[in-house]
Amino acid sequence: MAGTYKSYSLEDFGKDLSGLVQTRRTLPDRLAEHDVLVRVHAVSLNARDLQIASGVYPAPHLPPKGIIPCSDCAGVVEKVGDKVDRVRPGDRIVSHLSYNWVYGEIGNAMQKTALGGGIDGVLAQYAVLNEDGVVHIPDFLPFAEASTLPVAALTSYHCLFGFERTVQPGQAVLIEGTGGCSIAALQLSLFAGARPIVISSSDDKLLRVQQLGVPADDCINYKTIEDWESRVRELTGGRGVDHTIEIGGRSTLPRAVSCTAPGGCVWVIGPVSENEQSNADLAKLILYSQAVVRGVVCGSRLLFEQMIRNNVKNVLTPIVDRRFAFDDAKAAFQCLESGKFFGKIVIDVA
Amino acid sequence: MAGTYKSYSLEDFGKDLSGLVQTRRTLPDRLAEHDVLVRVHAVSLNARDLQIASGVYPAPHLPPKGIIPCSDCAGVVEKVGDKVDRVRPGDRIVSHLSYNWVYGEIGNAMQKTALGGGIDGVLAQYAVLNEDGVVHIPDFLPFAEASTLPVAALTSYHCLFGFERTVQPGQAVLIEGTGGCSIAALQLSLFAGARPIVISSSDDKLLRVQQLGVPADDCINYKTIEDWESRVRELTGGRGVDHTIEIGGRSTLPRAVSCTAPGGCVWVIGPVSENEQSNADLAKLILYSQAVVRGVVCGSRLLFEQMIRNNVKNVLTPIVDRRFAFDDAKAAFQCLESGKFFGKIVIDVA
Amino acid sequence: MAGTYKSYSLEDFGKDLSGLVQTRRTLPDRLAEHDVLVRVHAVSLNARDLQIASGVYPAPHLPPKGIIPCSDCAGVVEKVGDKVDRVRPGDRIVSHLSYNWVYGEIGNAMQKTALGGGIDGVLAQYAVLNEDGVVHIPDFLPFAEASTLPVAALTSYHCLFGFERTVQPGQAVLIEGTGGCSIAALQLSLFAGARPIVISSSDDKLLRVQQLGVPADDCINYKTIEDWESRVRELTGGRGVDHTIEIGGRSTLPRAVSCTAPGGCVWVIGPVSENEQSNADLAKLILYSQAVVRGVVCGSRLLFEQMIRNNVKNVLTPIVDRRFAFDDAKAAFQCLESGKFFGKIVIDVA
Amino acid sequence: MAGTYKSYSLEDFGKDLSGLVQTRRTLPDRLAEHDVLVRVHAVSLNARDLQIASGVYPAPHLPPKGIIPCSDCAGVVEKVGDKVDRVRPGDRIVSHLSYNWVYGEIGNAMQKTALGGGIDGVLAQYAVLNEDGVVHIPDFLPFAEASTLPVAALTSYHCLFGFERTVQPGQAVLIEGTGGCSIAALQLSLFAGARPIVISSSDDKLLRVQQLGVPADDCINYKTIEDWESRVRELTGGRGVDHTIEIGGRSTLPRAVSCTAPGGCVWVIGPVSENEQSNADLAKLILYSQAVVRGVVCGSRLLFEQMIRNNVKNVLTPIVDRRFAFDDAKAAFQCLESGKFFGKIVIDVA
Repeated sequence: MAGTYKSYSLEDFGKDLSGLVQTRRTLPDRLAEHDVLVRVHAVSLNARDLQIASGVYPAPHLPPKGIIPCSDCAGVVEKVGDKVDRVRPGDRIVSHLSYNWVYGEIGNAMQKTALGGGIDGVLAQYAVLNEDGVVHIPDFLPFAEASTLPVAALTSYHCLFGFERTVQPGQAVLIEGTGGCSIAALQLSLFAGARPIVISSSDDKLLRVQQLGVPADDCINYKTIEDWESRVRELTGGRGVDHTIEIGGRSTLPRAVSCTAPGGCVWVIGPVSENEQSNADLAKLILYSQAVVRGVVCGSRLLFEQMIRNNVKNVLTPIVDRRFAFDDAKAAFQCLESGKFFGKIVIDVA
Repeated sequence: MAGTYKSYSLEDFGKDLSGLVQTRRTLPDRLAEHDVLVRVHAVSLNARDLQIASGVYPAPHLPPKGIIPCSDCAGVVEKVGDKVDRVRPGDRIVSHLSYNWVYGEIGNAMQKTALGGGIDGVLAQYAVLNEDGVVHIPDFLPFAEASTLPVAALTSYHCLFGFERTVQPGQAVLIEGTGGCSIAALQLSLFAGARPIVISSSDDKLLRVQQLGVPADDCINYKTIEDWESRVRELTGGRGVDHTIEIGGRSTLPRAVSCTAPGGCVWVIGPVSENEQSNADLAKLILYSQAVVRGVVCGSRLLFEQMIRNNVKNVLTPIVDRRFAFDDAKAAFQCLESGKFFGKIVIDVA
Repeated sequence: MAGTYKSYSLEDFGKDLSGLVQTRRTLPDRLAEHDVLVRVHAVSLNARDLQIASGVYPAPHLPPKGIIPCSDCAGVVEKVGDKVDRVRPGDRIVSHLSYNWVYGEIGNAMQKTALGGGIDGVLAQYAVLNEDGVVHIPDFLPFAEASTLPVAALTSYHCLFGFERTVQPGQAVLIEGTGGCSIAALQLSLFAGARPIVISSSDDKLLRVQQLGVPADDCINYKTIEDWESRVRELTGGRGVDHTIEIGGRSTLPRAVSCTAPGGCVWVIGPVSENEQSNADLAKLILYSQAVVRGVVCGSRLLFEQMIRNNVKNVLTPIVDRRFAFDDAKAAFQCLESGKFFGKIVIDVA
Repeated sequence: MAGTYKSYSLEDFGKDLSGLVQTRRTLPDRLAEHDVLVRVHAVSLNARDLQIASGVYPAPHLPPKGIIPCSDCAGVVEKVGDKVDRVRPGDRIVSHLSYNWVYGEIGNAMQKTALGGGIDGVLAQYAVLNEDGVVHIPDFLPFAEASTLPVAALTSYHCLFGFERTVQPGQAVLIEGTGGCSIAALQLSLFAGARPIVISSSDDKLLRVQQLGVPADDCINYKTIEDWESRVRELTGGRGVDHTIEIGGRSTLPRAVSCTAPGGCVWVIGPVSENEQSNADLAKLILYSQAVVRGVVCGSRLLFEQMIRNNVKNVLTPIVDRRFAFDDAKAAFQCLESGKFFGKIVIDVA
């Protein structure tokens, strides 16, 4: 099975992304018995990929230099190792972030096998993945859309459906911004008959949010309405929201906690920017709001399979806003960094 | 029903407690139809009482000057209003913090009827309480011990048994210090077959903790063992604790989060001291630890009744460490402020 | 406030409904201080009303002869007692089954204040209700539709959203027949993005079910497909459904248990008909299926208010299939008994 | 690795146990790469083993003739296959019922790899087990005691701690009889500070129950007190118990449901004997009691590991009442059938 293929690697880490270079890798002669060779068709980007490439991702260990970046791909199984029984050649699949994380809540133990951070990732024409870390996708789902599921959709699904307090019809869900996780959470909330309330700095993006089914009144431009948490309280009859997908923007966490109902859940899914409040103020808010605050990093493979199975009838339609050619991967990272996108950025891998 | 009785009131608020004065009140001629006149026998103090007296309690509204302080009393029903059916004269009862909070999670709505903060409290020879805010106590429980239940025991019971993730036999529970809520949580953990791990700055207090049934190895003096959170991780096989009763000492919240297992619960029950870490660091810890952080303020009356009912067989034995005469109430507040006590401080009301 | 008004009463109980007679009642001179006088506009019927009228409802006590039947009404508050603060004259409301059941799970304790069974019901031009037992309805909801909420919708909402295992998008929900609770459950399932699978003996009714949004493949005529539980298993990929709304038809309970997934919930909401299997067979099925079986009788007022609040955006649209004039109430009961209806039967009260 | 060892096999199935014969097996030359060779030291019996041997166990498939019976053993790892990493030679372990059931609720899928029913069991001097189906035991736990954990203790632990409604201090738990699961449930309840109430037909056994720490008043001889469910209601202040471990004796299931509190859990862990009530009566009871009824068959390996980890401090002390030599295994089965034992029966395997 000789032959080389196009790949990327992170030769170094830094904000200018100069360490992200295209390279060639050699196809393995033999596959380890539980490994799967995947022909990659699409890779989507996550904030995590940018943080890793920039050298600021707070995992317990730095990734090794030369690592292939990115965790989310969709493609076709080409060959399987001798003991593989989860998939067969020809199967359309997506990658799961961490093949060790099959079920339950394993905390940071999943970092060491996390694609593109602990082990080689998927930004290449081929990926060698452990069979435990691949999941089937429905035939109707194109590769580009499917590639957005492993982190953005799964993290939001984990928050909204993976714990004891799930989102229910009629509940209000605070969505911050219009990045991958946020749009996925918005769509999942609409599927569940819940009511997303969206804050953004861009009227254009809020218009697109309305096109997804959110009433104009539930779209708040926080540049115009600076005291957005009071508006959120008004919109919810003074009660506050039942769920917040907290991405960690400037000052958002304390403000989200303050407009979350008692017993409502604030799901922290992103590292939080610096802000002026002290720890004590945040903790005091947590105490008196009686919101439940919890960090969520992706989800188990079992949950991923449940998400796909349960949403086939709803016709999963992730929003792919920008697409880049494989040779333009660096431009894709820069687009991510600019914030000038809606939903997900995908790199097509021909 | 004429006559006057001894009482306290907060004429002003300040750290020197000069506003706390003894006074006299007049017994009401008529009781409102849902009110109960209680002959008070014992009052226990909570950190909240000191914060209110000092003018630093972060309730939405300042208490009115002249308010009777304190929320926790045990006594005997003397008279009842015309429509009262929950209790009868002669019944031994304790007060519930907020008579409006009968069930569920009502957030800050309970502050406006909170004894000693929103409405007149119980540091007096008599208290007029709404019948919805009194709860029966078992005959075997002395008044001094019973008076420690309404906030300290109920708050800890709420944390450990009142939500979806309850404490189970064998689970580790991080207990900070040896104040009222902490000792109550320690005892409730032992009742449930769980394993309290206690941090304190005092060897004497840790000795008393051992006398309550905690092995010496599970008692950590953090003056000696500065990196106590690493010790907690070692004691739990690297996993971290399942529950933390977070009282808000200097730097404890972030450190407790860092030694709590994924999916473990950090119950924030006290306002947090200032510390050097920023909000971003706390939020980042929350994200990657995947602990569940939640503020808990007392509990509903329904939960209070369940706690008493379920713990009669375990023979509730709260720790009353210091007792003061009614005339020495100010000394009791000062003792609370000094931190030189273990468990609860009670004021006997002759 | 003198004056009489039209009413019904059950002078006796029996299958021929001869005990159901129209009568006149006198408006009270004074309202008790927590009572509310409601001008009734619509009353909906439940199977319970028929069982009570027939003398077969298995409540702990027989209703007293002369009781006004029925529990579900919608109307307008006309007068309020002196201490009433939940509603005001002019408010549009619906009745809650049992004014004592404000929150939680109180079991059969709610039977003694249950409208039309424990105390006088609402099949009259006026009803005197305890303020704890009335709930506001949105202005857009007509009285006839609103009158279907108190038992049919609330029971189904309780099953699907009121416990730990709620219905989630993509989950399969087995719906038996097309009566009030069943159609309400079907609509609530669709709101939640879930997948109702419906069994019925009537192609006409299944056509109406499809018009509500259920694909034809998910509609099963059990006269044609006798082994309907195998079809349900096929439709769910062999796994079985996640929830069943079990109304207690002939043989349905054991068959529903057998096509419910492990950990799925079988909500028993109706008394079960006689069938040939023994207790041992049902218990054996429960053991090896590992489904969760639970009886549900209506829901608390707190849950009722939550249901209304959460479903306003979804625009509650209960299905009112047959309407009868007040003078034709007996014909309405007979229609209920015939089974020849879809969704709910309403009696307009002019 | 040649050599033979003593074993048992079921050559046929029938109530007289004539099919249970001692035989010899040959040690494998090579172990499959994920297999583990265990030197068995003790085997405990479960009702399941008797039902299988008698040909009445209601698994989807009959076991193959010649199968080695029994699922519960404790022993020492002697050799491991090439890919084994969960255990090493010398480790003290117990078997898990079904090596495929690592986590979650997989329903009857676990039957096909269930020891002694789906695949060869452990009643032999050696057992070849998949590494996924072995669990470490603490050094202090003797083999005989450890061998009682895999089904009896794990099933009861699953009921009381493995779902959303766990047993809490002070709650009442109805224990039926004094077999393996019942005594394990009794002990787990005591660990958790809960209150077991035990029914039995034998005063001698009830005396032993008292020696385990249950007050005499909570021990009911149902031969003397025929209406035992009323006594249970009295003992719980009319409310009923919070949990029942339902083993399926004559008429116990309906009677247990009738003395379980609303929202209380009836855990069905055994096939139910014939009794006179019809399905409709049981279902009606379930409806109006609003107890939660659920079948529980053993537990996942993850739960098994959690049970062992959480109960080390409580010093697991299962009750081994009768011990038999390996050559007397048939007598052990007959003892099980006779009911003349308390807790567990163990076969020592020299």
